[in-house]
Amino acid sequence: MTKLIALYRRPEDAELFDRHYFDVHIPLIRKTPGLRKLEVTRIKGSPIGGTEYHLMAEMYYDSPEAMNAANASPEGKTAGRDLMSFAAGVVTLFYGDLEP
Amino acid sequence: MTKLIALYRRPEDAELFDRHYFDVHIPLIRKTPGLRKLEVTRIKGSPIGGTEYHLMAEMYYDSPEAMNAANASPEGKTAGRDLMSFAAGVVTLFYGDLEP
Repeated sequence: MTKLIALYRRPEDAELFDRHYFDVHIPLIRKTPGLRKLEVTRIKGSPIGGTEYHLMAEMYYDSPEAMNAANASPEGKTAGRDLMSFAAGVVTLFYGDLEP
Repeated sequence: MTKLIALYRRPEDAELFDRHYFDVHIPLIRKTPGLRKLEVTRIKGSPIGGTEYHLMAEMYYDSPEAMNAANASPEGKTAGRDLMSFAAGVVTLFYGDLEP
């Protein structure tokens, strides 16, 4: 299984950010084809020192190919454009495979 | 549900790092009390540009209190000392709560 991870640093206006994130962005993500699971974590702190992070979203797909197909789909492109419209300055994207 | 996230940047010697990580560190993590689930992701890349990340581990606990108790336990302290012995320069730790 492959997952795409979006890690968000704390935005300037967290309330405004969260409203767009949960009301607009998450519904767009849920429309992407082949999405098997979505897990969103609200970051609260760090066991050693502080943290710069605010939210983390993990999008699970069957394979790297399924993830690529989702990103290349019309729904994926719409979600990607939306992401860049409100989170370009705070998001880091990476993907990987689950270890057995 | 609460999860503790350990995000590892690419180490200098990934083979040596992985050997210690999977043979020594993960077995120590599995011994921490209250651990409900462990998910390790091998990072492969980013959909936009590259990534500095190598591995991500997610440790799930019932609550922040259960996570704190695990970290404060003898097994948790042993795992923490081990972490600092091989990954102090590459690991970022943070925790948060799963959104419903």
